[in-house]
Amino acid sequence: DIVKKVKSLLQGNRDLAGKRVLVTAAGTREPIDPVRYIGNHSSGKMGYALAEAAAARGAEVILVSGPSSLACPAGITVKKVETAAQMREAVLAEFDTVDVVIKAAAVADYRPETAADQKIKKTGNTLTLSLVKNPDILRELGERKKHQLLIGFAAETQELLSHAQEKLIKKNLDMIVANDVTLPGAGFNTDTNIVRVIHKNGLIEELPQLTKRQVAEILIDKICVMLTNYT
Amino acid sequence: DIVKKVKSLLQGNRDLAGKRVLVTAAGTREPIDPVRYIGNHSSGKMGYALAEAAAARGAEVILVSGPSSLACPAGITVKKVETAAQMREAVLAEFDTVDVVIKAAAVADYRPETAADQKIKKTGNTLTLSLVKNPDILRELGERKKHQLLIGFAAETQELLSHAQEKLIKKNLDMIVANDVTLPGAGFNTDTNIVRVIHKNGLIEELPQLTKRQVAEILIDKICVMLTNYT
Repeated sequence: DIVKKVKSLLQGNRDLAGKRVLVTAAGTREPIDPVRYIGNHSSGKMGYALAEAAAARGAEVILVSGPSSLACPAGITVKKVETAAQMREAVLAEFDTVDVVIKAAAVADYRPETAADQKIKKTGNTLTLSLVKNPDILRELGERKKHQLLIGFAAETQELLSHAQEKLIKKNLDMIVANDVTLPGAGFNTDTNIVRVIHKNGLIEELPQLTKRQVAEILIDKICVMLTNYT
Repeated sequence: DIVKKVKSLLQGNRDLAGKRVLVTAAGTREPIDPVRYIGNHSSGKMGYALAEAAAARGAEVILVSGPSSLACPAGITVKKVETAAQMREAVLAEFDTVDVVIKAAAVADYRPETAADQKIKKTGNTLTLSLVKNPDILRELGERKKHQLLIGFAAETQELLSHAQEKLIKKNLDMIVANDVTLPGAGFNTDTNIVRVIHKNGLIEELPQLTKRQVAEILIDKICVMLTNYT
């Protein structure tokens, strides 16, 4: 009816009202010693854009973020973490009560087996770092999920589609967003992204180069459709 | 005379006018693969504060900075680098023509022996990283220096003074600024610092907890005195 339409035009699209959305963003840092760490190039821009886009549609958003120089967006609960273990803990604490999880963070796959208590002095000409695998948060969520929609990201430098499709299936995702980080306009620190969206049913959509906010809006649109079909 | 005094009050202290000062800041990142790197916690705040303080005294400042979320200060030539090798190149390109070098950057001591062309897939449960020593930029400058004043930093987690004194001598520095990064109010991302200043003649000065800008002003004061005694 007309009242509804006017209201919607005035308020914008609020089709995530009443939904809780958990977004992870940026990279984790795995300590080598108190000074050094293993990090990755994720800036957090894609995840922060998704959190903002979801909040703008009326969702209650929890953003679990690794270190990032981006400002915490207004109206969003932000939980800052450093390591993959801390990210896992923060995500699992919220998982049961959310409707959608978007894992845009670049979580370190490996961490140093032991983090030295003191700064390692440069005595030798070489140094061997033993790394062990971090818990696979996305896989764990895929195994636990009940009503939740689970969206993953795959940042690859080669064989983009096959790596992303494999990840979607192995981790029981509903959708995966794949981007080749070697492409200009699709990297970690850029304001734009070039992604392909792969759905559980096998459908692959290719998006042109867009700003990360535009990509976020399109992904949130797809999530809204999925939520409608779900319930 | 009065004219001189009024001028100085209006302009502030310009006792580095005509001097070229090279400052390094922030940490370096050593690539493991296109996605991952070894980094360190340096925010760049101390180095950027030093660059600004030197510029405010009339110096021509060249700031060689690793990745940092700090804004490039106005009126300063900033050269952004990623790795220790790039920092070395940028510093050596300027070294002969500067009067003062302040090495506040946290340069990675080690880098992965080889950086993988493609993202390393997490196949194994463990991963061994072989690291090799990076060139020691500060030592190289200490060996090359002629007229230049050379100021170093030592960020330590234990045996602060002995490590710093050893570094001062081994690298032929004129002054070293030592801080225990485990102290609250002296860490990498704080806006304050607690430092001890060790001079070539053995004099040790302890400074209280101050803002990084205040520490920078005091260090620049000391550099001005050293420049006067030098020439």
